[in-house]
Amino acid sequence: MLPLNLHHTAIAVRDLDGALAEVKRLYGLEPVSRERVEEQGVEEAMIPLGGSYLQLLMPLSAESPVGLFLAGRGEGIHHMALQVADIEAALAHLGAAGAELVDTTPRIGGGGHRIAFVHPRSLASTLVELVEVE
Amino acid sequence: MLPLNLHHTAIAVRDLDGALAEVKRLYGLEPVSRERVEEQGVEEAMIPLGGSYLQLLMPLSAESPVGLFLAGRGEGIHHMALQVADIEAALAHLGAAGAELVDTTPRIGGGGHRIAFVHPRSLASTLVELVEVE
Repeated sequence: MLPLNLHHTAIAVRDLDGALAEVKRLYGLEPVSRERVEEQGVEEAMIPLGGSYLQLLMPLSAESPVGLFLAGRGEGIHHMALQVADIEAALAHLGAAGAELVDTTPRIGGGGHRIAFVHPRSLASTLVELVEVE
Repeated sequence: MLPLNLHHTAIAVRDLDGALAEVKRLYGLEPVSRERVEEQGVEEAMIPLGGSYLQLLMPLSAESPVGLFLAGRGEGIHHMALQVADIEAALAHLGAAGAELVDTTPRIGGGGHRIAFVHPRSLASTLVELVEVE
């Protein structure tokens, strides 16, 4: 189970418009997509950055996971995402290796990709997302 | 000033050997380099991941910046690094745009690259490193 790429690094923000404006003003970077992902309770923007993406996440409610993250820790880097070719094989491998899976089966994330999260307890308090891109 | 790539995402860890073993066991990923960067007070490992790297950082002392980060927040994602072609031009642009620079002139980081940090106050509480790779 070898991830193919660092698919994205995600930052939780309170104000998506404001954060996108700062990313443009400071770094000249612009999003290629922006969408509401209701199931995850976020509005997200994907900003291409070489072979990877910077993702900005804004919660749709204070009770969503990203809303709770903001309330507890404030803005900042929220997770990193690893690109895999076969997410079911990746989850099976991780489960067998004793990793603590937030999602034992894939769900649909931004861009229509199949995704799953691995609990921060499994690697240095770092929330890891798997993203299937064939 | 357009960054060329998401050069790496860095995780602060207490036990570099243990974290490397977990990254290998769970994800099959191995470091391409490991070095002590005395000036930054860290021992760091660079793990290739597609067109980017996962970096693991272990402090050399409790008083180093990463040591203080661990004491205050525990393990977790510490910063993200943007690859630039001309770090002096990038710093001049960011300074003119009002970004708060931790380093106003480049210093030497891992791999001998010229690096500089931009304060988390300038973008959603996110510590951003610039890495010059020509």
